[in-house]
Formats: sequence, C-alpha cells, structure tokens
Amino acid sequence: MERQVGAEESKLCRKLGVFMRKCVFRILSVGVIPNHIAFILDGNRRFAKKHNLAGEGAGHRAGFLTLMSLLKYCVELSVKYVSIYAFSIDNFKRTQNEIRYLMDLMLEKMELLLREDGFLSKYGVRVCFIGNLGLVSEPIRVAAEKVMRATSKNTRIVILICLAYSSTEEIVHTVEETCLVTKKTQPQAFKPRNPQNDVTEDADEHKNKEKNTIKLVDLEKHMYMGVYPDPDILIRTSGENRLSNFLLWQSSNCMLYAPEALWPEIGLRHLIWAILNFQRHHAYLEKKKKQL
Amino acid sequence: MERQVGAEESKLCRKLGVFMRKCVFRILSVGVIPNHIAFILDGNRRFAKKHNLAGEGAGHRAGFLTLMSLLKYCVELSVKYVSIYAFSIDNFKRTQNEIRYLMDLMLEKMELLLREDGFLSKYGVRVCFIGNLGLVSEPIRVAAEKVMRATSKNTRIVILICLAYSSTEEIVHTVEETCLVTKKTQPQAFKPRNPQNDVTEDADEHKNKEKNTIKLVDLEKHMYMGVYPDPDILIRTSGENRLSNFLLWQSSNCMLYAPEALWPEIGLRHLIWAILNFQRHHAYLEKKKKQL
Repeated sequence: MERQVGAEESKLCRKLGVFMRKCVFRILSVGVIPNHIAFILDGNRRFAKKHNLAGEGAGHRAGFLTLMSLLKYCVELSVKYVSIYAFSIDNFKRTQNEIRYLMDLMLEKMELLLREDGFLSKYGVRVCFIGNLGLVSEPIRVAAEKVMRATSKNTRIVILICLAYSSTEEIVHTVEETCLVTKKTQPQAFKPRNPQNDVTEDADEHKNKEKNTIKLVDLEKHMYMGVYPDPDILIRTSGENRLSNFLLWQSSNCMLYAPEALWPEIGLRHLIWAILNFQRHHAYLEKKKKQL
Repeated sequence: MERQVGAEESKLCRKLGVFMRKCVFRILSVGVIPNHIAFILDGNRRFAKKHNLAGEGAGHRAGFLTLMSLLKYCVELSVKYVSIYAFSIDNFKRTQNEIRYLMDLMLEKMELLLREDGFLSKYGVRVCFIGNLGLVSEPIRVAAEKVMRATSKNTRIVILICLAYSSTEEIVHTVEETCLVTKKTQPQAFKPRNPQNDVTEDADEHKNKEKNTIKLVDLEKHMYMGVYPDPDILIRTSGENRLSNFLLWQSSNCMLYAPEALWPEIGLRHLIWAILNFQRHHAYLEKKKKQL
C-alpha cells in the first residue's frame, strides 16, 4: 500500500515537473528561440571519476542520457537544428581500447535509436552525420548511413552528429571540393603554366589572382555544414572556453557559453540560461548586423 | 607648499603601484606565461555613451590609452605576441563618417608611435599589420608599411594589428595563394579536364581527389598569421562571447575570456585573472595534448 502511494506521489511529481517545464518554455517562446544550438560534450570521463562510477565508459553512458534529455527539451522549444561534437579527428589519437569502446557504444546507441518506437520517430528527429566518415570503421559507417536514411523524412528537428570531424579538416576538404568543381566548370581558372612564358606569367600573376574564381560563397557551399544555418549558441561544458576545432568557420557570430558543469551534469537550467542570454543579446546583434 | 606635498604623495603612490605590479608579475612568472594573447577591443562607443564623453571618437581615444597600458603590462610579463582586432572588413560597412574618423585616429596614433623616443622603441615593440591592406586608403597603407619597417629590428614583443581583417577573408586568400603556388610547383594537380574523356575522368575523380596536393600544412603556411604561433588566450571585452570573424582558424585551442568590462575599462586585474585561468588550465591542456 505504502509503495503504491509512493509511486503515485512520484508520478504526480513528474507530471508537475513536466507542467512547470512547459510553462517555462511557453514564457521563453515569447522571445526569439535560437534556430541552431551546438554542443561540445566535455567532461564525461571526469564525471565518472568524480562519482567513482565503475565500468568502462560509465561517464559516456551517463552523458548519453543527458544528451537525450537535452534533445527532448530542444524539440519542445522548437529549436530546428542541434549539432553535437561526438568524435573529433584528434580523438583517433586516443588509445585503441578507448576508441573501440566509444565506437561500440555509438553503434549500440544507434541501433537503439533506430527502433521504430524509439526516440527518433517519436520526436520527428532527422539525423545527419557530419565529418569524414571515410575514417570510421565499416560497421559504424553502415549504421550511420542507415540512421540517416531511416530518419530522412522527419522534419521536426535536425540533429547534426559531428563524427570524425574537425573544422580544419572540413576547410581543407572544402578547398579540395571547390578546386575540383571549379576545375570542372571553369577549366581556364586552373590553366597550367606554360614554362616558356614563365616571365610574362609571373608579371601577370597579380592579374590572374584578381580573376581567381574561388570565392567565399564557393567555399561555403562545399562545407560539410554548408546547407545548414550557422549555430546561434555554442555550449561547451566543464567550464572550458575553447572551441577545440569545432565549427570554427560557422561560429563566427555565435554566442559561446561555457558552464562549469560537466557534460552529464548539464540540465534544463543551463539550457534556459543560455537561451535567456541569447535573447538578451539578440536585439543588439540584429541591430549590429543592420549597422554593419 | 601644499601642492608640492600633494605631488610628492602622488609620485610615491605611483611608485608603490609600479612596485606592487612588479611583485605580482614576478609571482605570476613562476607559472607559465602565455606566449600569445589576442584582444577584441569591444565597447569603445558604449564607453563614451556611458560616461557622456563629448567629441567624436572619445571612446576610441580612451580605448587607445587602455591598449597602451595593456601592451606595457604584456611587455613586462614577457608575453611574446599580442594580436589586436583593430578594424574588421565588416567595419567598412559602417558610415563613411565613422570610417574616416577611425582611419584618421589610426594615422595620428601611428605617427605618434613612430617618434623615436616613443613607446615602440622604448619597449622594443615590433609591429606587423595583418589583413588585406589593399582595402585601406593609401596614407594608412603607407604609414602601416613605415611602422613595420621602422620596428622590424625590435625583438622584445610583436604586436599583430589586424586591419581590414576577417578570418573568412584570410582563409579565402589562403586558398587562392595555395592554389597559385601549387599550380606553379605541381601543375599536374590542376591539369584541365579533356571534355572527350569526361566519363573516364569522372570515374577517376575519387582517385584524383586522393592525390590532391593541397594539405593542411599548405594552407597553414599561407595564412596571414601563418608564421606566428596561435594565441593562448583571446580576450573580448563587453561580456560578448563571440569571435566575430577574428582568428577563427587560429583559436581552435585558445582559452576565451569575456569580462563584462567595456574595452576602455579593462585593466591589470582582468589581465592577471586571464593569465591565472590560463595557468590553471595549462597543465590539463598539456596533458590532453599528449593524450591526443
């Protein structure tokens, strides 16, 4: 009997919590809601150490639950894009054991998410993987492609999972792509030099440079992130105020927020605080954009 | 007599202040001193408005004095590089009046700094201008080149003044330079397509891409900032947590610090706080670099 009352109380508390959250979100939505929030998930290992969590990757498992909660809040808030720095190219330099564990965990979670009654279909989440997928193992790549295909019709929110990603690699890749396409469409831009005319060509180099057909827009459209809007807020946990090679090109006018909480400790209050700060600066930023 | 006593007291206070600062710097120097600090000078106009300062550019004049103090502290601390976001490419979209005023102020200050008994020679400052100087007016470009030549032998500290600069323009410029140099040294990399062989070439495109000779290091060495080390700390005043297209490529692993103070209000305590925070994170960052 006592247990039943306890369960009822807990259910009531949960419902009250959801109601309160919805009220807060309704108030927040009076202001401008960011279109795109990016997260750097920092502090999973430190969380496991701090709480003496046993078992390999216990911190990352806790971090995954946090991620799911935050994604749910973002859906409820009508945020349209969420980017996640899941695994950087530099992370490949970690121990083989750790990489293997993280990849296994990712595979397990992708399979879980793919279940028809799962999170992705329930919340209308479209998943896109961003990065050099040629660097990850075959099973991960296949699973990632499967998730992308399976969710390609969902339209409520787009989750951009940056896997085997680094901003500098993205830019180098973009340059290669741009050169290849420019070569195809405007071969004269890359006309090879005639060694006999070297002197004349050297003199004309400045002119050629002026004519060079690679432009900012050309580069932008070949970025992995090219078709998505730039983030409005970038949240990095653990109080680390660094971008660590994440969305460098895209976060030029993005508000950075670095709460002290480790990733698994981040919660609703941090998200609300970030959005309030964004709203506080939004009018000023818009005014500035018009001034510029 | 009273005035003389007052002057003596003020002199004594100043000397005591200098002594205290030197003591603090000596203590700070027990830890690691950042090699390169970058500043975004935000809030000059708001400072003028807040303090009802009359006269055009009064905020910028106050900001210049702050800059001089901070540079002096950086010299005393043996910081080797300081970058300053003086004028962005976006700033050219401001009103003609404001641009003219800012350029005049810059010209005036460059001439002042060039005086033989001035700041630059006293503190052994080498000045380099970074950015697309083709966009500024002739007198400014000439003065900038004169300052660079006049200080080229100074070795105590290098001040990188980012003028007509934006990070995305820097990257586009780098791509153009890299393509030009690659074209010169490895013309086969940009061999034009033979329309008759299009099908074969399409099939071979992936292979060509693999062979593409543009690499990260190629890009890095053609950056305006290519020969200088990446910043360790980036300080942006006015509590704005955005990079605003400043050193995006270079600040990947840089600690960002955004005090609430407007630029002319920033002082010694903010610099000390930023360095203490850098020192607190330094061991962790070094450990992380080794782990990666």
